[in-house]
Amino acid sequence: MLNNHVGRPFEINATKSFNTEKNIKIADFRGQVVVVYVFQMLCPGCVSHGLPLAKNLQQSFRSDDVQVIGLHSVFEHHEVMTPSALEAFIHEYRLTFPIAVDTPSQHSNVPETMKAYQFGGTPTLLVIDRQGRLRLNHFGSINELQLGAIIGSLLDEKSVQTQTEDADESSGRCDDEGCRI
Amino acid sequence: MLNNHVGRPFEINATKSFNTEKNIKIADFRGQVVVVYVFQMLCPGCVSHGLPLAKNLQQSFRSDDVQVIGLHSVFEHHEVMTPSALEAFIHEYRLTFPIAVDTPSQHSNVPETMKAYQFGGTPTLLVIDRQGRLRLNHFGSINELQLGAIIGSLLDEKSVQTQTEDADESSGRCDDEGCRI
Amino acid sequence: MLNNHVGRPFEINATKSFNTEKNIKIADFRGQVVVVYVFQMLCPGCVSHGLPLAKNLQQSFRSDDVQVIGLHSVFEHHEVMTPSALEAFIHEYRLTFPIAVDTPSQHSNVPETMKAYQFGGTPTLLVIDRQGRLRLNHFGSINELQLGAIIGSLLDEKSVQTQTEDADESSGRCDDEGCRI
Amino acid sequence: MLNNHVGRPFEINATKSFNTEKNIKIADFRGQVVVVYVFQMLCPGCVSHGLPLAKNLQQSFRSDDVQVIGLHSVFEHHEVMTPSALEAFIHEYRLTFPIAVDTPSQHSNVPETMKAYQFGGTPTLLVIDRQGRLRLNHFGSINELQLGAIIGSLLDEKSVQTQTEDADESSGRCDDEGCRI
Repeated sequence: MLNNHVGRPFEINATKSFNTEKNIKIADFRGQVVVVYVFQMLCPGCVSHGLPLAKNLQQSFRSDDVQVIGLHSVFEHHEVMTPSALEAFIHEYRLTFPIAVDTPSQHSNVPETMKAYQFGGTPTLLVIDRQGRLRLNHFGSINELQLGAIIGSLLDEKSVQTQTEDADESSGRCDDEGCRI
Repeated sequence: MLNNHVGRPFEINATKSFNTEKNIKIADFRGQVVVVYVFQMLCPGCVSHGLPLAKNLQQSFRSDDVQVIGLHSVFEHHEVMTPSALEAFIHEYRLTFPIAVDTPSQHSNVPETMKAYQFGGTPTLLVIDRQGRLRLNHFGSINELQLGAIIGSLLDEKSVQTQTEDADESSGRCDDEGCRI
Repeated sequence: MLNNHVGRPFEINATKSFNTEKNIKIADFRGQVVVVYVFQMLCPGCVSHGLPLAKNLQQSFRSDDVQVIGLHSVFEHHEVMTPSALEAFIHEYRLTFPIAVDTPSQHSNVPETMKAYQFGGTPTLLVIDRQGRLRLNHFGSINELQLGAIIGSLLDEKSVQTQTEDADESSGRCDDEGCRI
Repeated sequence: MLNNHVGRPFEINATKSFNTEKNIKIADFRGQVVVVYVFQMLCPGCVSHGLPLAKNLQQSFRSDDVQVIGLHSVFEHHEVMTPSALEAFIHEYRLTFPIAVDTPSQHSNVPETMKAYQFGGTPTLLVIDRQGRLRLNHFGSINELQLGAIIGSLLDEKSVQTQTEDADESSGRCDDEGCRI
């Protein structure tokens, strides 16, 4: 069985980015938990389920804890799902998180990032830990309680930079006042 | 400002229990994360939002990780929200998790557990950690991603019994194969 | 096959009424289209689907065109779905349309109106025309576009006062077998 | 106040059609009630509310009673909402009813049919009676019970073939101001 590259370092291969001034690199978010929402603008399940979830993620967590990134991985109808069409889609659906365009392949309908990490289709949800490793590679709809539990667990993990100095810090994000999001 | 008893030990004061053979004691679930769904059978928000969430919690996590408990805390219409009426409600709504009846007060409309921990009303959601301490005391509707994150974080905490021997166990529930629920 | 009494005169057999000062009689609404929502307060499908539909009907049409009536037809758990319990339910769910209690049978669990017109269970939706005849007797959930079409068609029918002049106009899309879409 | 052309004859001005072999003309559906769903493929409200309603209409009524027609009236992002892009959209969303492309204007962003009948935007729902007259011109979301009632009432009206004998029957619940519930 394929392991979907879970546990290994993850990086996006993109040609163009929206809602940001520079190219999107997962490496730039080291120390944060990153959720990548992989979609196509003409994919009904992406619009009805994936997109509301991506917006909900953006609103449910502090942006310095959890960063939401979109990845437009076109594997069909390439002639109409162009970067210009995506730009109109982003405008109409009022998406404000950074969105990258997966690099088209020279040899296949499947773009480069999608092929490299064997995404099952769209929508796919990726969760990347504070150290830049892929921890979830999930195709289709997803249970929000379970996704929240994965994110809550990853938020508790130390990032590689601060791991040593915080070794004596106790149980993390919960104290006598409650558990903070 | 009141702290809603968060961080302190929590126990139910109950007169009667359904879906279980003995009286429900939170102490009996030491080592598990416990979610208590506080409700009244004639409370519209409990039926429309709280109940589906309680069932979803029961299905989303392994029962040896997360235990769902119902607590019927009647503070109005006492004459019709009797244990017999609750029994019919449990039967009709096909609830299968253990449900306790909060002990009525001799001096007030508010039952004993509700009064002791200052629940804001119904539905209220309580989350109790592996050591039996109250970690969330939330009145009203709740964001499932955020609730999942709290549970995910508490699942990572060691329970008091096993804390010493597992001290060297690394990052918990996620490994190279993924994050397990 | 049973015809569910469609096309015949309809009247409620009730012992008690709420949200009105006198006993509810369908005959008192002659000239209006009447929708009767048959329910039990502990029936999950009634609370989740039937009740929102009844409220929507009340808000979607002028009350002198369409009158919504509730009918509490208890055929199980009689000891806890009492008129007192129903009164608390009506208060908590903020129901404002007239609600009648179906007369309990001396010989059966099924109350008198339910038995007389062979309702299939709860929720059941009845639609009665301007002349007091039953035109729809539907058990379970229902398509709102189709229900709206039945009501729109019945609103176009003349009431008994103006019937003479149109006596030769046959009754349109409804007959003894029901109202067809 | 504008009357939105309600009560007057309606015809589509279209350049291209999908899901049908010939150009779509409302005149070809004389004798049926026609519902026209006016949309843009990148309009979020069209995709989330209008499209499910159009599919529901198609399934709720017999096609020889009610004909559903789509009209793609593009007034923004013309360069990406092309007929080719619409064709991919129709394929992905599995739309099976006939869909016409509103004729682009030489002088304005607003296409010809949209301009002629002063649609308020997208989604707009038009209802056309058995004689080809516009009876509802509604912008935005709509109550399904009320829409069903309008359709139910129009289904009861005679078509042009049988009109002579009923010539003195005035047009019922719809007039130049619209169709009243």
